[in-house]
Amino acid sequence: MNRIYVDHAATTPVSEKAFAAMLPYFRESFGNPSALHSYGQEAKKAIESGRRAVARAIGAASSEIYFTSGGTESDNWAIHSACEMKRDRGRHIIGTAIEHNAVLRTLEKLQQRGYTVTLLRPDARGRVTADRLEAAIRADTVLISVMLANNVVGTVLPIEALCGVAHRHGILFHTDAVQAVGHIPVDVRKLGVDLLSLSAHKFHGPKGAGALFSKLPRLPLPYITGGGQEKGGRSGTENVAGIVGMAAALTECVDGLSERMRYLAGLRDRLIERTLQIPGAYLTGDPVERLPGHASFLFDGIGHSARLIAMLNEAGICASAGAACSASATEASHVLESLGYDAARNQSALRISLSTCNTEAEIDAISDRLPLFIAQLRRK
Amino acid sequence: MNRIYVDHAATTPVSEKAFAAMLPYFRESFGNPSALHSYGQEAKKAIESGRRAVARAIGAASSEIYFTSGGTESDNWAIHSACEMKRDRGRHIIGTAIEHNAVLRTLEKLQQRGYTVTLLRPDARGRVTADRLEAAIRADTVLISVMLANNVVGTVLPIEALCGVAHRHGILFHTDAVQAVGHIPVDVRKLGVDLLSLSAHKFHGPKGAGALFSKLPRLPLPYITGGGQEKGGRSGTENVAGIVGMAAALTECVDGLSERMRYLAGLRDRLIERTLQIPGAYLTGDPVERLPGHASFLFDGIGHSARLIAMLNEAGICASAGAACSASATEASHVLESLGYDAARNQSALRISLSTCNTEAEIDAISDRLPLFIAQLRRK
Repeated sequence: MNRIYVDHAATTPVSEKAFAAMLPYFRESFGNPSALHSYGQEAKKAIESGRRAVARAIGAASSEIYFTSGGTESDNWAIHSACEMKRDRGRHIIGTAIEHNAVLRTLEKLQQRGYTVTLLRPDARGRVTADRLEAAIRADTVLISVMLANNVVGTVLPIEALCGVAHRHGILFHTDAVQAVGHIPVDVRKLGVDLLSLSAHKFHGPKGAGALFSKLPRLPLPYITGGGQEKGGRSGTENVAGIVGMAAALTECVDGLSERMRYLAGLRDRLIERTLQIPGAYLTGDPVERLPGHASFLFDGIGHSARLIAMLNEAGICASAGAACSASATEASHVLESLGYDAARNQSALRISLSTCNTEAEIDAISDRLPLFIAQLRRK
Repeated sequence: MNRIYVDHAATTPVSEKAFAAMLPYFRESFGNPSALHSYGQEAKKAIESGRRAVARAIGAASSEIYFTSGGTESDNWAIHSACEMKRDRGRHIIGTAIEHNAVLRTLEKLQQRGYTVTLLRPDARGRVTADRLEAAIRADTVLISVMLANNVVGTVLPIEALCGVAHRHGILFHTDAVQAVGHIPVDVRKLGVDLLSLSAHKFHGPKGAGALFSKLPRLPLPYITGGGQEKGGRSGTENVAGIVGMAAALTECVDGLSERMRYLAGLRDRLIERTLQIPGAYLTGDPVERLPGHASFLFDGIGHSARLIAMLNEAGICASAGAACSASATEASHVLESLGYDAARNQSALRISLSTCNTEAEIDAISDRLPLFIAQLRRK
């Protein structure tokens, strides 16, 4: 059976180009980048060229890019480091209620250590305004962390405006851009952020590779300590193949981004249009300010969407309810809850996230089956 | 030029089998293990099968294996977690002066947070005795961390005996087994350790993958927080291909380990014998209790070995001075220093670390050149 994969917000296949770029770094140019001999220097060159490519893709300087094991580690590092650096100023952090758990759980950990955390509640579409942020700022606020695009409902948040507010108050700004980088234009200078997290496997790079952008005048304080790699910022032998794959994948995404975005938005809108013809179907997130390949829905009267996901899966369609990480827990999404949906609706969520691997024929295949499955679930 | 790679303690090429095992997980079975659909379930199956393989290789139960981004993260996690769990008991930690920086820098970080750290000084061969450990224990000691095998001088430490001492005092024991796993028999039950760190790229697995063994009755407290992967212990989308490659590589190393050890010890001893014929050449570390593929030397009158490494490199021989991580810093090894070598000798270190990829002919090629290079350096 030919499967239709539409869960790209959870993870993506490694692109052909990224895969080809990585391969020589497993068995041929396999050196440790810290070694002085030729194998080491080849590996070192590869990661520095990867650093330049990642920097270029988000409008940063190479010196501002630190490689990590992924988006979650980048979020942990950014938040802990910023708090540590501003320790003398205060212990108040502002986030939003729709952040990924990589941010939320890290804020909770800081709460246990005496920090106070304010989580802004977004509007029904998942947006947070500058006014609302302004109102939450206190004299002891040291960090504001707001995601660039939401993983569950696809909403793109107005980071440039929010960051402007933060900086007027001299507060550091971090954005979890894991869902955005490679999908929409991301320019760290335009956004103005101090810290930004990204993850390779969300844009057709390999799992186990990510980066932290930091323009802080001082190095981000190391979160993982040891051999002093990444200019002392992040210890551990660099995942050379992972870095090379990430850089190749990101370069590919960013080149020709507007064309890809147009293609994906076309597929997405076709899917949304067909899906909203189902009675009792609702789009979640912002209808305009959303990721080009992201469509998310709620359906009246179907109960828990785990059954819908299973039916789709049996038909060869691989979609999800929302955040991949909590999928196994099948717990109600904290994101939908904070957008104001009640528990019954909240659990009926379906997320379809596309890539350029998807075709119009696949969208039509999904759109043909979805009404039947929904009707079947409602009959039960 | 056919290069001779003898820096396997820094990193190893991915084995053919491990490479072949990993490949399908980049572009085919690329799912997110947390996803409920078939792609997700394939990935989930792969990591659970990898967990069983890693557990089997070190005599652990699958439930005691947690995947990480590498040995350094495992060390950080183990140490922070153990201290946090025993917080009420005290704030004293015992390590050794020859630990890897992944342990030493982490202990320093804890010192900054109010912990007291005792670093045991080993004997001239790099061994630490149970008596010496016993004498360092205090009423408020919460953790003892001693490496299983040293990266710079190759000495294997008597962990079983040391761990026995720790447990008689009710103290947790962690071992950094990054250089040992896959190279010598490692059985966590026989050793008795509570926590053990390992790293894939040291045994022909990929970079960016590692594991922490923990038999603590409670989960190790998460160091990286987020989506709750690894039973809530370590968040971040699992590096599926990395885990699969690590498991395949380790299985291969452990099957036929005694044969490999015999082969490597043969090469090593041939190299040591020839090298010690050079006047003013000394073996560092323990001559008997050492890793089978590890030979480390000091040479009188050659100045800093960076020049020797460069000459070897030009001749196509890729060796190192000692720890890869600090290679670029060309700083004197803290390990040799604590074995009692003075600064002049300390800096003349050469480490040759072998794998079964190496041949007798390669050993002879090295042994033929080494005396010439040493003589040349002494003439300068």
